[in-house]
Amino acid sequence: MTKPIAITMGDPAGIGPEIIAKAFREAPEVTAGCLVVGDVACMRAGARLTAEFGRIQLPVAVIEAPGELAGVPPGCIPVLQPGAASEPVTLGRISAHAGRIAGECVLWAADAALRGDVAAIVTAPIHKEALAAAGAPHCRFPGHTEMLQARAAGYLGTSIDDVPVRMMLANHALRTVLVSIHMSLRDAIDAVTVPRILETLHVTHKALAAVLGRAPRIAVAGLNPHAGEGGLFGREEIEIIAPALELARAQGLDVHGPFAPDTIFMRARERPGQLRKFDVVTAMYHDQGLIPVKYLGVEDGVNVTLGLPFVRTSPDHGTAFDIAGTGRADASSLIEAIRMARTLASASLRAGAGTHAS
Amino acid sequence: MTKPIAITMGDPAGIGPEIIAKAFREAPEVTAGCLVVGDVACMRAGARLTAEFGRIQLPVAVIEAPGELAGVPPGCIPVLQPGAASEPVTLGRISAHAGRIAGECVLWAADAALRGDVAAIVTAPIHKEALAAAGAPHCRFPGHTEMLQARAAGYLGTSIDDVPVRMMLANHALRTVLVSIHMSLRDAIDAVTVPRILETLHVTHKALAAVLGRAPRIAVAGLNPHAGEGGLFGREEIEIIAPALELARAQGLDVHGPFAPDTIFMRARERPGQLRKFDVVTAMYHDQGLIPVKYLGVEDGVNVTLGLPFVRTSPDHGTAFDIAGTGRADASSLIEAIRMARTLASASLRAGAGTHAS
Repeated sequence: MTKPIAITMGDPAGIGPEIIAKAFREAPEVTAGCLVVGDVACMRAGARLTAEFGRIQLPVAVIEAPGELAGVPPGCIPVLQPGAASEPVTLGRISAHAGRIAGECVLWAADAALRGDVAAIVTAPIHKEALAAAGAPHCRFPGHTEMLQARAAGYLGTSIDDVPVRMMLANHALRTVLVSIHMSLRDAIDAVTVPRILETLHVTHKALAAVLGRAPRIAVAGLNPHAGEGGLFGREEIEIIAPALELARAQGLDVHGPFAPDTIFMRARERPGQLRKFDVVTAMYHDQGLIPVKYLGVEDGVNVTLGLPFVRTSPDHGTAFDIAGTGRADASSLIEAIRMARTLASASLRAGAGTHAS
Repeated sequence: MTKPIAITMGDPAGIGPEIIAKAFREAPEVTAGCLVVGDVACMRAGARLTAEFGRIQLPVAVIEAPGELAGVPPGCIPVLQPGAASEPVTLGRISAHAGRIAGECVLWAADAALRGDVAAIVTAPIHKEALAAAGAPHCRFPGHTEMLQARAAGYLGTSIDDVPVRMMLANHALRTVLVSIHMSLRDAIDAVTVPRILETLHVTHKALAAVLGRAPRIAVAGLNPHAGEGGLFGREEIEIIAPALELARAQGLDVHGPFAPDTIFMRARERPGQLRKFDVVTAMYHDQGLIPVKYLGVEDGVNVTLGLPFVRTSPDHGTAFDIAGTGRADASSLIEAIRMARTLASASLRAGAGTHAS
């Protein structure tokens, strides 16, 4: 694979620049072939933070196009500045200009991925309120996912509804895809519909088939305790989930369930002496899937957006304004996100899926 | 502690007799001072199962009162038959007489605990449908908890509402108490009320204060993703949970939250290099609490009924009719349940709580 992976800097008032610099220093074998889309001064400040703790500060190498990456020697952090340099940023503080530069990096990386100039993008965390303060077009998006979805729809000339996306959380033991994410539990129950479950299953199947080179074995959790216990504790399994699985099976997907939510994640996960029973578990709502994935620690959790016409991963944490600038931020999840992006990008390539059509 | 612990046999068509016999054989230091309330023939059959796999079959010693336990030598399984001997039982099959004998054992043990003749009861799994087929009084109860609650209320001369109970699940890393259990997720949301949360917190506080010898540090999970994110993803945290915690604090309880459900269990649990941050986490619904407790395996999970005027624990699994008679059942969870019952009973004793008044 020769195309670079683009890592977007995230909000420079948060831990993004620091964890990116740490990833380059601590995991050079993982960051090889990666470029940072960010602000040069902010990235230099991030690199300095890693030096303050008795380690070598890596130099920033400024590049102007992905093609220049080949000329950057190991031991440098290659940074591509997508727009004007940032005004000085106060760490841990929400600001419009930090939001703007963070948004510009994401839009540049999305366009580069859509054009096929980069193989995948890995996004360091942005801050919603900073993005909202940053003015158009950034303020129109609540977060990364909507931004990437809109950019992809624009590029493909379709509506956003034609680019359905789902959040997958993955660590070494378990992958889970969520039917819904950021809404109240009451609304999440209402979002358990046949079309939405089917869409989730198709997005999951397509994305993981590319990675695994075969149809993924998909387990589906129920909504209610004991998956409804035959209708005694709720009827969504009988009236909605099971019929959706029937349809999915008829369409050739390898889906199983609905299973009792309290044991399916435990049964599906990989552990010493037990291979994964399922390649992925579909969760009916945010916490059903995130509690098990995060239970053993957030360090190696990676967020993957499925359904985009390019590969996008991100670490499973936020901007952490409270520790920004202290040098204490942990790069583990970002490093895992880069590793995962590379795996997914290679798999897409193997599967012969062009970046536009996958 | 001189009073025995009563282990009820459970449905003899399930794995109860087998795992009890295995517990006596595999963990004699744990079962010392325990008696089995069960059917002598069924328990002998259970003991025989453990012999079929190349191990010593322990003999059954018949006793007629808890006081006789002192005369039973180690290496025997002391069994007290509470009523008429059972008709022959077909393993793995639901039957009225198996349900009846299972129910009789539980009622006998509850009465013995209420009288103070035994220090605690540990219940092997019963089968709901067998109990329903068993006729009065057994058929009136959906399960153990309701049976014990009714017996306690009768003994105390109060209504069942005056004996509020809650289910606690505990393993080596985490304890969780559930605001509601066996109902649909939609009904569980409606059950998130100030009185019910307060009652849960008081039952939890009282029970764990006796165990720990100090006020337990109680974490409370939110209901919605990110605990509602300031009202953006649901308002139950603002309108119900936080006010309930305020009231609990005013009443002297050490409660914290509401916390984001996807990370509070992970943060609270004990792990290498991290002591428990909280003694227990209150979960708003069944799967929120059970997914994390079961994630690492059900083997060491123990179910504790809080709020009864005596100690009651049980293994965290069912009758497993599918493997009954194969000798493959795992006694680990039962052994942990006995261990936990002993700890709780000693603690209640230390706390000076009489069995009737605690």
